[in-house]
Amino acid sequence: MHPEVVDKCKQASQASTEMAACSTTLKNKALETIARSLKNNLKPILEANKADLELLESKNNYSRAFFDRLQLNEQRIIDMAEGLVEIAALEDPLGKVTGMWKRPNGLEIGLMRVPIGVIGIIYEARPNVTIDAAGLVLKAGNTLILRGSSEALHSNKALVRIIQQSLLENNLPVGAVNLIEDTDRSAALDLMKASDYLDLLIPRGGPSLIKSVIDNSSVPVIQTGAGNCHIYVDHSADVDMAVNITVNAKVQRPGVCNALETLLVHRDLAPSFLPKVLPALIKQGVEIRGCPKTAAYSSEVKPASEKDWETEYLDLILAVKVMESMDEAIEHINKNGTGHSESILTESYDHSREFLKRVDAAAVYINASTRFTDGAVFGLGAEMGISTQKLHVRGPMGLEALTSLKYIIYGSGQIRE
Amino acid sequence: MHPEVVDKCKQASQASTEMAACSTTLKNKALETIARSLKNNLKPILEANKADLELLESKNNYSRAFFDRLQLNEQRIIDMAEGLVEIAALEDPLGKVTGMWKRPNGLEIGLMRVPIGVIGIIYEARPNVTIDAAGLVLKAGNTLILRGSSEALHSNKALVRIIQQSLLENNLPVGAVNLIEDTDRSAALDLMKASDYLDLLIPRGGPSLIKSVIDNSSVPVIQTGAGNCHIYVDHSADVDMAVNITVNAKVQRPGVCNALETLLVHRDLAPSFLPKVLPALIKQGVEIRGCPKTAAYSSEVKPASEKDWETEYLDLILAVKVMESMDEAIEHINKNGTGHSESILTESYDHSREFLKRVDAAAVYINASTRFTDGAVFGLGAEMGISTQKLHVRGPMGLEALTSLKYIIYGSGQIRE
Repeated sequence: MHPEVVDKCKQASQASTEMAACSTTLKNKALETIARSLKNNLKPILEANKADLELLESKNNYSRAFFDRLQLNEQRIIDMAEGLVEIAALEDPLGKVTGMWKRPNGLEIGLMRVPIGVIGIIYEARPNVTIDAAGLVLKAGNTLILRGSSEALHSNKALVRIIQQSLLENNLPVGAVNLIEDTDRSAALDLMKASDYLDLLIPRGGPSLIKSVIDNSSVPVIQTGAGNCHIYVDHSADVDMAVNITVNAKVQRPGVCNALETLLVHRDLAPSFLPKVLPALIKQGVEIRGCPKTAAYSSEVKPASEKDWETEYLDLILAVKVMESMDEAIEHINKNGTGHSESILTESYDHSREFLKRVDAAAVYINASTRFTDGAVFGLGAEMGISTQKLHVRGPMGLEALTSLKYIIYGSGQIRE
Repeated sequence: MHPEVVDKCKQASQASTEMAACSTTLKNKALETIARSLKNNLKPILEANKADLELLESKNNYSRAFFDRLQLNEQRIIDMAEGLVEIAALEDPLGKVTGMWKRPNGLEIGLMRVPIGVIGIIYEARPNVTIDAAGLVLKAGNTLILRGSSEALHSNKALVRIIQQSLLENNLPVGAVNLIEDTDRSAALDLMKASDYLDLLIPRGGPSLIKSVIDNSSVPVIQTGAGNCHIYVDHSADVDMAVNITVNAKVQRPGVCNALETLLVHRDLAPSFLPKVLPALIKQGVEIRGCPKTAAYSSEVKPASEKDWETEYLDLILAVKVMESMDEAIEHINKNGTGHSESILTESYDHSREFLKRVDAAAVYINASTRFTDGAVFGLGAEMGISTQKLHVRGPMGLEALTSLKYIIYGSGQIRE
């Protein structure tokens, strides 16, 4: 195995005992030290980031969005620092025992919340993830191995240096946060096989990164991010509310995973709803790709292909399909959705309950925009991505998602008969 | 991909929507039908099992323990049937919402317990697992793909036929429980790659089976079973209680994962404890492999090698080591243990709390035998193995371990500003 990967895995593993036992006060102090140090080191961070941006520009082959995600400025660094202060202010999830039960033989049994251990993150060129991840992982008593992309290497090195110096200042082990500096694919692949050291691996990035981690990792993985989200407008929906919510879910921030991608409309409401919603969307610059029935309501609707139903556009494009029934809509969603966020707009009590029960997704809404699926909005504080898998954690991943439980058992000499 | 694997994955996937929506009453009725049908079909089941046993005997190369695990008799089948009736009597975990919280914008948010979906099990020659797994998986609203070993094929086919007939009788989809009949390794490997269909894969068997599944699966896996369990006898322990618990944890049923494998003794208690516990163990037929200090207390102690500290004997063998301090014991356990069940025997309040916090295992005991780690004993009803990983579920896996959660959100027209 790659020597740098082994070395940093070992450091993270050794540091994890100390971090697990670290007091809440000291963890919070360390996070505040990192925050202060970020604000005091704007210049070296921005210089490192500039080196990354110049290298990227020299390649001539990158998107504006990619450049934007990589770019830091004073405000962005201050926001990162303030994010850490917010994490410090969150309640420490560790050590909590929500109750104990007594068994007939007198044993008292409870579940205590404990750290997961060593958490790895493989991510793309977003330096803010370096700080967010460190804040959440450390607060939950874990240690961290970061593997960022080559394009952000200078930025990540500068940020991790600040984190490690802040840990040292607080007499905490520097091995609590490690950056794999070798950005060759072989190092990432070795990290995916390091199940002797890592307890969890989280990929943060596009579908190809996530698929590569799922296919290659022998470490348990949490899938995040893919959001082909639907709104189903039921026959009984309030038309004005439906127009308002649909436009919001599509255009308020189209590039994020909880934005609307496909609109499903019950055929009975189509004549009153589509003539209102389609112009409202088009006015906001949204391209509509519709089924033939949708096309009947506007000459600007482009024909949708089968592929449109399964596409996460992350752009001002919306697929629209008229449904014969709520059953058809639920089936369409469970077939084409990615299990992220799905919403029904309805005035029917029965339909609201049926939709809630039968739609298989991390977040199922009644009469609201899908855009609310977010750790802060849900009240979890900060978040570490949105899980679209069903094991361990589903939906926004807050601090508790980065913890595990253990059974604790108080006895008084019991033996098994 | 293997045609039988694809076919059965598709059937399980299709059936999962219906099973997720199935009423508690109907699920319980189906389990009771299977139980009744097992009792009414003792003869064909025993004949199928006999065919497996005869094939095994013709191979001349098997252990007595292996034969025992494969062998069914009337009582064992009746026990399996009664296990199903017990599962039917358990509370349905699905649909439970433990509370909802209200956000400043008026959204009400809660978490609803839902099925996981399609669960695969790869297991060794234990036909009872076929019935136990089906009972738990169905009750939790999931569907099942079984992949048993070649040695149990006739038995498994007979049992799955009974399950499927019982499902049919209750108008439930037969695709809810599927057996992969091709026992070639390639079929198992394809099942491990079927992440488009399977939501969870559970290996049940020895270390090599579990390792193969972890290394090859792109489906999320829950690790079960390995138990290198320790008891640490602190300097303040009650000697008589310690003798009693140690002997119980080692000899009451040495072949199971929660049995004691290594005894750690504080040096201050060694002179009063070891001269009592060693003869008591030896009298019960236990072979002692000890450190040099242990050997000073009995001529029958064999010298332990480094390998002994990490071995799960599953037999009447016990490794014994004298410790300088509780810190050394905790370090020894966290280094050599498998994260299953660990116990401290102590009269010290401080030490009991320290051990509880710092030992990293699914179940940490104070003053009790490790043998209690078990779903029924913990009050979870039936269990599907004992998880030794930290994600999703840790320790005994009851019905709730076979479920997931989803966020449900009640709105009244909210949009994101």
